[in-house]
Amino acid sequence: MDIKIIQKLKKTADTKIILLVMDGLGGLPGSQGLTELEKANTPNLDKLAKIGICGLHQPIAAGITPGSGPAHLSLFGYNPIKYQVGRGVLAALGINFNLKNGDLAARGNFCTVNKEGKVTDRRAGRISTEKNKELCQLLSQIKLDRVEVFVETVKEHRFLLVLRGKDLSAGIADTDPQVTGELPHPPKSLSGEINKTTKLIEEFLDEAKKILADQHPANMALLRGFSKHPSWPSMEEAFGLKSAAIAGYPMYRGIAKLLGMDVLETGETIASEVDTLEKNFNDYDFFYFHVKKTDSYGEDGNFKDKVKIIEETDSLIPRILKLNPDVVLVTGDHSTPFSLAGHSWHPVPTLLWSKYCRIDRVEKFGERDCLRGALGPRIAAVDLVPLALANALRLEKFGA
Amino acid sequence: MDIKIIQKLKKTADTKIILLVMDGLGGLPGSQGLTELEKANTPNLDKLAKIGICGLHQPIAAGITPGSGPAHLSLFGYNPIKYQVGRGVLAALGINFNLKNGDLAARGNFCTVNKEGKVTDRRAGRISTEKNKELCQLLSQIKLDRVEVFVETVKEHRFLLVLRGKDLSAGIADTDPQVTGELPHPPKSLSGEINKTTKLIEEFLDEAKKILADQHPANMALLRGFSKHPSWPSMEEAFGLKSAAIAGYPMYRGIAKLLGMDVLETGETIASEVDTLEKNFNDYDFFYFHVKKTDSYGEDGNFKDKVKIIEETDSLIPRILKLNPDVVLVTGDHSTPFSLAGHSWHPVPTLLWSKYCRIDRVEKFGERDCLRGALGPRIAAVDLVPLALANALRLEKFGA
Repeated sequence: MDIKIIQKLKKTADTKIILLVMDGLGGLPGSQGLTELEKANTPNLDKLAKIGICGLHQPIAAGITPGSGPAHLSLFGYNPIKYQVGRGVLAALGINFNLKNGDLAARGNFCTVNKEGKVTDRRAGRISTEKNKELCQLLSQIKLDRVEVFVETVKEHRFLLVLRGKDLSAGIADTDPQVTGELPHPPKSLSGEINKTTKLIEEFLDEAKKILADQHPANMALLRGFSKHPSWPSMEEAFGLKSAAIAGYPMYRGIAKLLGMDVLETGETIASEVDTLEKNFNDYDFFYFHVKKTDSYGEDGNFKDKVKIIEETDSLIPRILKLNPDVVLVTGDHSTPFSLAGHSWHPVPTLLWSKYCRIDRVEKFGERDCLRGALGPRIAAVDLVPLALANALRLEKFGA
Repeated sequence: MDIKIIQKLKKTADTKIILLVMDGLGGLPGSQGLTELEKANTPNLDKLAKIGICGLHQPIAAGITPGSGPAHLSLFGYNPIKYQVGRGVLAALGINFNLKNGDLAARGNFCTVNKEGKVTDRRAGRISTEKNKELCQLLSQIKLDRVEVFVETVKEHRFLLVLRGKDLSAGIADTDPQVTGELPHPPKSLSGEINKTTKLIEEFLDEAKKILADQHPANMALLRGFSKHPSWPSMEEAFGLKSAAIAGYPMYRGIAKLLGMDVLETGETIASEVDTLEKNFNDYDFFYFHVKKTDSYGEDGNFKDKVKIIEETDSLIPRILKLNPDVVLVTGDHSTPFSLAGHSWHPVPTLLWSKYCRIDRVEKFGERDCLRGALGPRIAAVDLVPLALANALRLEKFGA
């Protein structure tokens, strides 16, 4: 359902929604035939499943393995096919760069060029992050007319370029030729034109070439994914939810910020995130509560520790419920099965509880139990926030 | 699936479809943990569930609570996001006004204005329906150039205005300012222009102001939801179904009429509706059979009587089956759980029987049993008519 339609139906209510995201929650069976979640001892989540409704959500579409950005946008009710974040903006989010409206961001690569200027290695032999930092400091000294320049290290050969000034245009084509043996593309608009912004970028790259000339293998820079801070409706504008994010990692804090959530200061443990939730519970309608390590252990192929993080999260559920939220939604942003050691396309176990949900017959929170639940085996992730809003009695009737 | 695609695939067949709609059928568990439908003793529907397929349909989209209009359009195979009915047209349907092609309808409010003409009460203190009738009679005397004027009572402060004439344009902005303390908006097109139609409306309102001047608190009128009888494909054009509606209430009869159904005269009881069905069974391909009181009792929060109406309907199923229909579809237009005393977003139990359905394992017609059925836990309501057509062998193959 289009956000604009939900937006028209939203109404205020004195109700609170908690969205608990165990990153990469979904899994695949291990040696005992049980998935990470099925193996985990989760008495509190099981109790919630018993009095709530279950199912599995599909983050983007059948067979699509999502990145963290689009997977989270879906969970927040923003169709990630429509709401695409440029690579430049994503890079800024990833390193917690405070991107402002009007900023133009690009993902940069240090690369190697030969005497004719042709690219011989698009990643400059994957230089160290330390070296990257030195080079970014050098490039930061570039001055452009009436525009501030930020050059920030991401990792290895990757950096972030941000131009801050008036009337910068997005819609700039990549300078990265994507293959070796060619010259970097001169900066142009997507339709092939030269404008004020492309001239500024050209100036930046000319200066960068001079500065990097004796820094072989990192003797040039390529830019791609030029993009600006999107002007999307905030969670409050779209859904009427004054929203807060409780998340430790920059990427997730960044996405929350993009949607206008307040990003709360919190600690490193899940328990300290619950502290933050308790302390701020009166001040918001919607809480995005993020548990990162389920995904990290999944990525490491570590079945046992993924199970432990799920159990640790489960043990904190009673503290969350004690706050008397009106709607609790527990899920992951995507699956990260230990056996694939990476994100996957598998639907993600999902549990919704409210006073008004129509209880199904699922009594245990696990992939296969969820298949029989009222949410169905592949509800679209973008449908979850509207459903939570309904259960929080925050939506008017559609039509008369 | 878009109606245009179904339209291309439709073929004639000597088969009959009955769509039995128990309005607001879906419910929520009562004190014994059973929903209204689960509690009801429904041996005949259960038998049909056993030899048919079950599931739950989602009227509009996840979390969306539908009004009766859009919920019925979905059930009839018309996507209500695309096929939107204006408020004026809905008001006409609701009082059984015989709207014709080209008519321009608007929802009116009697309101109170002060000496400067500013609105002080948008509902004129909710005057009585009796008083409304008097005022509508007065306003009906207004004469406009080459246009017929109809002013009809809806209820309390609400009335219907219909202009009948040539070349009336829809796309007129509301004159209702939606807040008190402001002047009514002068009639303009949605883009802010003045045209022949806005001039006619202005003339009407000028006359109305004079006539109502000494009728305080109802001393002025506000208009909104200007709309014309939509020119949608009829059920016959779209699906090749010569269709009849058996429904007692004006709103439902009106919607059926919008889709080109013949609206049959019928009595007040469900049994008399079955009489009507029997009498007309030879003359149509598709019957929309509406049971209203399941919804009414749901709206009243009356669990017991909603159960009774379901049981009464169940008892009449054998008479319906005796007619030898080819496809029987039993469902509601939306849920009206007694505990919410209003429409809700919950998916609606659905049962389809035909000689050609692939029987599932559901043996009882109830919300939770339906979860395991072949139709799935949230099939889109607009998909039901195409499915019924298929089961009636009324659709050609798509592609070669």
